[in-house]
Amino acid sequence: MTVGLILASKGRDVVTIPPHRTLTDAVQLLAEKRIGAVIVAGADGKVLGILSERDIVRALAAGSHVMGDPVSRYMTSKVVTCGPDSLIGDIMEDMTSGRFRHMPVVEGGRLAGIISIGDVVKFRLAEFQHEAEALKEYITVG
Amino acid sequence: MTVGLILASKGRDVVTIPPHRTLTDAVQLLAEKRIGAVIVAGADGKVLGILSERDIVRALAAGSHVMGDPVSRYMTSKVVTCGPDSLIGDIMEDMTSGRFRHMPVVEGGRLAGIISIGDVVKFRLAEFQHEAEALKEYITVG
Repeated sequence: MTVGLILASKGRDVVTIPPHRTLTDAVQLLAEKRIGAVIVAGADGKVLGILSERDIVRALAAGSHVMGDPVSRYMTSKVVTCGPDSLIGDIMEDMTSGRFRHMPVVEGGRLAGIISIGDVVKFRLAEFQHEAEALKEYITVG
Repeated sequence: MTVGLILASKGRDVVTIPPHRTLTDAVQLLAEKRIGAVIVAGADGKVLGILSERDIVRALAAGSHVMGDPVSRYMTSKVVTCGPDSLIGDIMEDMTSGRFRHMPVVEGGRLAGIISIGDVVKFRLAEFQHEAEALKEYITVG
């Protein structure tokens, strides 16, 4: 089962924010869109980083004055991406070992979507259940 | 596979905060303990709510002045809990349908631990893999 299947179900919309916008802007965007992370992208659409609820809360440990700082200062710059052909099982292992919850999907150098640990769990569970049912049926028939 | 098995692996430590402490206190506690949510508990140890990174970021959409407000104002009061005997598959469904990522474990009216979606995913995956391997072996042997 591939990432493309998740995108076909949830859509390819990606919310982005320019790097010079503030944490206050980011917080309002996350609330408005009801999401947990936003991609930081340049004017050319290039992915510069990702800013999650965790990044914001960790930044705030230094004091609430950080809310006026640019998102580029607190984003995670080293972003692990995947493609539409990436396997959901591999993504889950990447998220578990890297301890992050969102992964941008890139196709032909451009943003093609974003998947969360919630999406991955839902599809991976369905995949395992199908496999277990197929095996059980095989046993019954055999 | 039960919640008790997860607790046996990760331990039963639970970080709590009193309801009158501020969001600033909570943010510093989350950073220090490297966790994503804290249980709000009264002096008697009773669970009053749970405050997650999401609750904090959503509160901040109203402005950074909220950081001085008490956690009780922004916590999620309607907390879904489980027991050590709860099944991991059931917990995963509760988290997916309720869209939350942390669940306190209560035993005999007292906090006995906390489990996250990351813990649940890790154990549920192991459970499915064992089941699939057992079925495959059954087929091969049969």
